[in-house]
Amino acid sequence: MMQPHKRVIGAGTVRNRNGIRTMVKRTSFEGDSCPIARSLDALGDGWSLLIIREALFGVRRFGEFQGKLGTARNILSARLRALVEHGILATAPASDGSAYQEYVLTPKGRGAFPVLVALRQWSEEFAFAQGELSNIMVDRDSGAPVRKLELRAADGRLLDPGDTEVKTVKSAP
Amino acid sequence: MMQPHKRVIGAGTVRNRNGIRTMVKRTSFEGDSCPIARSLDALGDGWSLLIIREALFGVRRFGEFQGKLGTARNILSARLRALVEHGILATAPASDGSAYQEYVLTPKGRGAFPVLVALRQWSEEFAFAQGELSNIMVDRDSGAPVRKLELRAADGRLLDPGDTEVKTVKSAP
Repeated sequence: MMQPHKRVIGAGTVRNRNGIRTMVKRTSFEGDSCPIARSLDALGDGWSLLIIREALFGVRRFGEFQGKLGTARNILSARLRALVEHGILATAPASDGSAYQEYVLTPKGRGAFPVLVALRQWSEEFAFAQGELSNIMVDRDSGAPVRKLELRAADGRLLDPGDTEVKTVKSAP
Repeated sequence: MMQPHKRVIGAGTVRNRNGIRTMVKRTSFEGDSCPIARSLDALGDGWSLLIIREALFGVRRFGEFQGKLGTARNILSARLRALVEHGILATAPASDGSAYQEYVLTPKGRGAFPVLVALRQWSEEFAFAQGELSNIMVDRDSGAPVRKLELRAADGRLLDPGDTEVKTVKSAP
């Protein structure tokens, strides 16, 4: 795999051996040729994925996002702006003709749906104790839980991590 | 959807309207009943996903992770420790009998494979310009690109975001 470009874009904190938080640099993966690394620039911030989650459920206005997420105004405002800059959200006039601005998912934003499903399914399987209150994704028609995402070969065979490898290519989207 | 618990666990930075970085609080979603929010506590840090990526490709030692990722020692050390605390990595004696400690993925860690695939596929589709150097995931047997992850109903129908909803349940793993 390629090394991420180590352009420092900010700072965060980690706990050291004694449980004390210390500042660390944060790195941008914007120019990285690994698609996983690059996705983290746009989606690697927790709030961004939760904003996309709400938008997929039909939330469109600043106040609604704030009400659902309980995010501080400055954080929400910065995250919405970053999502617009990344082409994940677009701004639009209010659908009811009022003066409000609305945020709508672009195809790039709606395309993040499998990422949210994968995170949810991993968490459902590994991050909840028995009896804990959770929520699961169901098929709206039948009310039955959806299937687990599966990775398949072109011919339909189910693939494990060990059945795959990565190949360098020039993008032709 | 549920509101995340707003336990502040650290700080990060965002750009304000004038492009100046300002400090913001970071929030823990540990007790959140939404599986997406909860997954972000364990996986929502970019380095953690890149460490899991390398581990899936067979990397096991601190120095190897450092060489592949170019991460500062203190960050890598904190991230590896957090992944062990989350039960995503486990430590093991060196496979060659030397004094090195190795890090191996647990089932919970290997279970994050679909998350990495979903991030990669989103990025392949939306985050690369034509002609840019990228890498794609292929089936090791045939060398052909893998299929896109698909979400299906129990009866096999392909599901769009609008075909799904979430339902509160008690976990019974």
